[in-house]
This record gives sequence, structure tokens and C-alpha cells, in this order.
Amino acid sequence: MTKSDKISPLAPAGLPDFFDIGGVMLSAAATGVKYRGRDDLLCVSFPSGAAVAGVLTRSRTASAPVIFCRKNLASGKPARALLVNAGNANAFTGKAGDAAMTSTVCALAAEIGCAADEVYVASTGVIGEVLDDQKINAHMAQIVRNLSGQAWPDAAKAILTTDTFAKGAVRAAMINGREVRINGFAKGSGMIAPDMATMLAYVFTDAALSQDILQGLLSAGADKSFNAITVDSDTSTSDTLLAFATGAAGAGREITGIHDPALADFRAAFEATLLDLAHQVVRDGEGATKFIEITVTGAEDDRAAKVIAMSIANSPLVKTAIAGEDANWGRIVMAVGKAGEAADRDKLEIVIGGQKVTEQGMAVAGYDETACAMHLKGAEIDLAVDVGIGHGAATVWTCDLTHGYIDINADYRS
Amino acid sequence: MTKSDKISPLAPAGLPDFFDIGGVMLSAAATGVKYRGRDDLLCVSFPSGAAVAGVLTRSRTASAPVIFCRKNLASGKPARALLVNAGNANAFTGKAGDAAMTSTVCALAAEIGCAADEVYVASTGVIGEVLDDQKINAHMAQIVRNLSGQAWPDAAKAILTTDTFAKGAVRAAMINGREVRINGFAKGSGMIAPDMATMLAYVFTDAALSQDILQGLLSAGADKSFNAITVDSDTSTSDTLLAFATGAAGAGREITGIHDPALADFRAAFEATLLDLAHQVVRDGEGATKFIEITVTGAEDDRAAKVIAMSIANSPLVKTAIAGEDANWGRIVMAVGKAGEAADRDKLEIVIGGQKVTEQGMAVAGYDETACAMHLKGAEIDLAVDVGIGHGAATVWTCDLTHGYIDINADYRS
Repeated sequence: MTKSDKISPLAPAGLPDFFDIGGVMLSAAATGVKYRGRDDLLCVSFPSGAAVAGVLTRSRTASAPVIFCRKNLASGKPARALLVNAGNANAFTGKAGDAAMTSTVCALAAEIGCAADEVYVASTGVIGEVLDDQKINAHMAQIVRNLSGQAWPDAAKAILTTDTFAKGAVRAAMINGREVRINGFAKGSGMIAPDMATMLAYVFTDAALSQDILQGLLSAGADKSFNAITVDSDTSTSDTLLAFATGAAGAGREITGIHDPALADFRAAFEATLLDLAHQVVRDGEGATKFIEITVTGAEDDRAAKVIAMSIANSPLVKTAIAGEDANWGRIVMAVGKAGEAADRDKLEIVIGGQKVTEQGMAVAGYDETACAMHLKGAEIDLAVDVGIGHGAATVWTCDLTHGYIDINADYRS
Repeated sequence: MTKSDKISPLAPAGLPDFFDIGGVMLSAAATGVKYRGRDDLLCVSFPSGAAVAGVLTRSRTASAPVIFCRKNLASGKPARALLVNAGNANAFTGKAGDAAMTSTVCALAAEIGCAADEVYVASTGVIGEVLDDQKINAHMAQIVRNLSGQAWPDAAKAILTTDTFAKGAVRAAMINGREVRINGFAKGSGMIAPDMATMLAYVFTDAALSQDILQGLLSAGADKSFNAITVDSDTSTSDTLLAFATGAAGAGREITGIHDPALADFRAAFEATLLDLAHQVVRDGEGATKFIEITVTGAEDDRAAKVIAMSIANSPLVKTAIAGEDANWGRIVMAVGKAGEAADRDKLEIVIGGQKVTEQGMAVAGYDETACAMHLKGAEIDLAVDVGIGHGAATVWTCDLTHGYIDINADYRS
């Protein structure tokens, strides 16, 4: 695999200090399925009664693990274990791929002492090659034996593929006067688009939340985070976002719904965790040199605003202009126009880095490109578009399109 | 403007020998609006009674010339003149841009001696800068004086922007035993996506066809040609495809509809002209080194087939894999999956260069990548996908995504 040897210039300083999440145990191992000299298998175990929720790719060619997780989620049973391998997506591998996945799930279930439908699983990497289940299963006894409450950094690293840095986020919150904790980690770099990204993300909390409430929080949070990012408009067959709530902190059992005021602080912290991880995925976008926030207001409704924002975020011409630090706002007009949502040339306002560049269907009087050009030289780019016809709003995030993207993807497998 | 100094490796040998199209006169001039040392203004005049039909961008931020042409087409009046300038799109230039356009239209109408609503107009180039109508109008008397029936190559060259070669196509056909002729030329290289492309295309015939029949032919033909190509998924604010029929050949007055058997030979030739020009636009795609034909069969219906084909054609990961000559068919599976149309992993068949690579939801038994790898080393790439669930079919064309695209677009305006 060709990948950048150096860490993305947009990377955060490092992994955060993860919390202990009572009862969640983790372990990583190096199976050699694809990579050499690094961990590529992650196992997580949960105490009995851990609620689980998920948001999974809507791809029509979803991988076997995605289909398996979707079925287990529907059962409503608590989760006992999570197994993730990196380097091979085991997607589009037919019945042989299904059998390989089942073999690893059963091996882990036997080792942990639970049922197969209490196990969650994900595979990420190259599509179309059957996973070598024997290489995975040979490490199963060891990986379960090594489970520990401290192995969060190892876990965050074991699931990476083309990522240039490990991605973690932590938050604490109060529920009815008691502290609860949230840890999360994710991987993702290319094939990132809603819904969702080639992306795996796992969030863990010791709050005591029912599956229904956890699912409600996760679905709402994903729409404003993982489903609001794009690197390259391509959507993976393996995208998986799962949340687990062990209940070890005791707090939360009294919550009646996701809009319960007692849940407000937790909900904000939970959504912040998701957004933090989603932003890190964009910051590790293949070849990225600029992190771009795009806010659309004044659209017909929120849905239209998101369509327009994503049209801008996915436009190769907008993304290459930003890579070239060129305040070529005509391309933003183009991307608004192609989105197909209601727009009116004479009401459209474009703001780059806080500087208004258009109004009344043309460049502002006395427009001076200097301020925009300065803003575009930075690594954090803000684009705002007011469509001027309604009250719909949305914010999405993307990165620029550079030679680095071509370098990485014109030779991915070799 | 940054552009490749060398002609696309996918370019045809040169412009064809254009026919005389009785009564159509052309002329080009160098106005210096943007370019130096080359023609950038095209004028075409038509004899009285020339039918005109058009297919225009569906962008919600369409340029003033597009809106003007749309209005004139609706009037049903014959066309008397066409005026095209290259280097400035006069799009998103507000009321000032509208006024500049009207000024050039009126100057030409006065010179030719016709009404403004008999003039068709297009502007192509940078968005957001008001067209300098005085520079255009200063050449109006001269350009009309120089009109000639032979200036087809000059015309095809005058409308180019980032194109690396001029694009022309000619066909002859018989209608009820009489020969009729078709000339066409086009420009387009980036911002190419349905509907339509940053693309101007003009087709001229001496057949005697009513506006209704010409429009029917053009709309049907565009769906299978200009609306079936993509370079970068970006859609221009200026796309204009116009057809003019002078009637000088005398043949065609008796035609009753586009499905009239007497029109069959002409219709085939007309569609071949459109497809030839559309293919040349893809062959001049910014940075292109491979011409890619994507055929989808077995989809739910023809609409679904085209959505899937375009999902593959617009996937940066598919396009970079082909640039890298990597038979990474997993990315094709991904692109089918993200299209959102009905698909079944176990029925999907992918064929690369005539070589079947998948069946029953996985790689074919004994799959040997050698033949595919050889095919991908060539410049003409064939991808075929059979979805396996219905009878819908579509073919679209695109090019690969290379460093050349980034070079051209990360510094377009400087």
C-alpha cells in the first residue's frame, strides 16, 4: 500500500488520555494478514448488559460484517465483544467471505463465552480478497488473554489502514450529579463520504443507557458529524459507527428519552466526541493540506442546505482551487448551481474567511482579493454561503484535493 | 491560465474536412478580452428561416447567455446569428453582466440587420468577471464583414479555453434520396458533467427540419452523448448545445416526426455527430491519459443503469486506480454500492477489457489479473458491469484522474 510516510499536517498533537470505562477491556495483536510489524487486530470485551447502538453504511454492496452487525443490532441484545481487523475489508468476497467472518466470530464467542449474536465485527482494507480466518483465529486465545482496561492507545492504532495518525477523543459529562465518561476512537482517511465514510468509529461510555436511547443519541449525532464529512465523495462498503454503554457509572437509568433535560450535558459531550473524531478523519483525508468548514444558510430547508454544502464539499474544482490557495469563488457559484436545490443568483452571498465576496449576483463593490488570499494560505478554511431564500442551514467539513491524493490512490494496492 | 502545453494523448489526428453548409457563414476575431495572440470571438450567420434547437445547462446559477438563449428558443423564431466569446463566462456578474451581454447582442443584431431575439450567444471562461462588451463590440463590424462559408476550422478554434485541441465532427446522410450534411464543433475540457458539461457545442445542417423536429432530435441525442459524459462531476453555469438547420439542401420538409422512417439515416448521422463531439470533450478531459467507456446492464431500469454508470464514472477512487493502471475492481463494487440503486452482491458481474473478473459476489475462480492489467496499460479502457437484476442499460464515458488535473485546476486563474 502506498501511503504518505509523514503524518498529515492537519493532525492533532496526539491521542488524548483515555478514561477507564468500567468493564471495557481491550487488546490488540499482529496477525500478519496484510501488514508487517504492527497490530492489525482489535478485540474489545464488555461486561454483561452493555447496550449497543450503530449507524452503518447504506451502500448497496455492504460488506458481510456490516450485514452481520445490522442483524445483531436488530436483536436488541446487549453486546459482549467487538472484533476488528485492518488490512482486508472482506467485502465482496461472496460466501467464502461470509464463512471466514463467521469463523472468526465463533472463535471469539467461544473464547469469551458468549453467543455469536453478542459479537460485533468489522473489517477494513482492500475490497475483494477473502479474509484469512485462520490467521485471525490463531491469535484469538492470546488476544482474549491480554484484554486490559488500559489498552486504549493500542486499540486506536490497531484499526488504522491508510491513516497517518491514530484518532481518539474523550469527554466527561454529568448526569443527575454523577460523572460519566466517554472514550472514542476511529479510523478513516479515503473513501470518505456520507453515508458514511470508509470509516470505523467506536464510542464507549460507562453511562447506563438503554439501547433505544443510545441509538437515538447516535443517529442524531451521526447526522451532524460522520454524515457531514466528505474527503472524496466515495462511500465505503464497510462503514461502521458503534456505541457501547456499560452502565458501570450507574448514572442514566432514570433517563426517559434523548430530549430528557437530565441527558443534555451528556448528549452535548457525546455529540462533541463524535464531531471530534469525524473532524480527525477529515484532517487525515488522503493528501489533505487544508481543513475546510462549509456552512450553508438561507436554503429552502435544512435538507437543501446540506445538499448544497455537500455539492461544494465534493466539487473537485472547489477542492483544487483551495489546494492552490486560489480565491476562485466562481467555482463555489458553480457548485451551488449544480446542487439542483432552489437558488437565486441575485440573492446568493459567499463569504470566505469572514470576508464577503459576493452580493446581488456579483462580486461586492470594490472587492479586494487580498484578505481572501491571506485566509486561503492558512490550513483552516471557512466558507459560508447564504442562499438567501429560506431558513435552512447545514455545516459540513472536507479537505482539499491535492497531488497527495493522486499519489496515494493511483497505486493503492501495490 | 495554467494549462497543459501539450495536446492530450487521446486527441484525434486533427479537425475533419468540414462541409459547406449552404448559407452558414462564419468568422473569428481576436478581441484581447483575456487571451493574447489568438482568436477568442466567433460569429456565425444564418440565412433566413434557419430552425434552431437547444439543450442548456440545468444549473441553478446559469449564466446570462444561457437564460437569454432559453428565452429565444421558447419564441420559436428562426435564428439569424450566433456569437460566442472565450476567456470570460460572464456568469454570476449580476445586472452589469446582463447589460454587457445585451450590448453585444444588440451590436451584432444591428450589424447583421436582425432582431435581438434572433441572436444566440454564449460566453465561456472564468466565472464572476463582467464581460468587457466594448472590447467585443469594437470588432463587430469587422467580424461580420469577414463572414465566409469556409471558416469552420477558425470557428472551432476561436471558442476554446483550457482545451488542448479543436473539436470537430462531420457526417453526411440521405433523406428521401437527397444528401444532407452535418458539421459540428465543440469546446470542453473541465467542469464536465451532466447536465451538461462546461461545454459549448454547435451542430449545423442544411436539412430542412422544423424547430420541433430539430429539438426532438437534439434532446434525444444529447441524452446519449453530452449528457452521458463526465470529466470531474462538476457542472458548468454556461453549458450550451445548439443545432441549426438552414434547409438549403431542400430535403426534410416532408418529415412528420423524429421517428419518421425517412429520417432514420439522418437521425443516426446526427446522433453520431453529437457522440463524436462528446467523446472528443472526454478525450480532452483535464489531465486525461485514458478514455474510459462504462457500460452498465441488468439494472432495474435504464435510469438506474445511468445512475450506477455515472457513480462509477465520477468516483475519484475508480479514476485514480485507472490512472495507476491498477485493476482494483473493489472500487467498482464500491461505486455500484454508493449509487443507491438496487443491486445484489451475489449477482453483480464486472468485466474489465472483456475479461470477467467477478461473479457470484466474489472474484471469478482462478482469476488472473494479468489480462486486466494489460488492458489497463492501454489508452482505451472498457468497463462493463452487469447488475443482474433487471434489463436497464446505459453507457457513459469519462477519463482518468491524474496529477495533470491537479496541475491544471490548482492554479487555473493565475
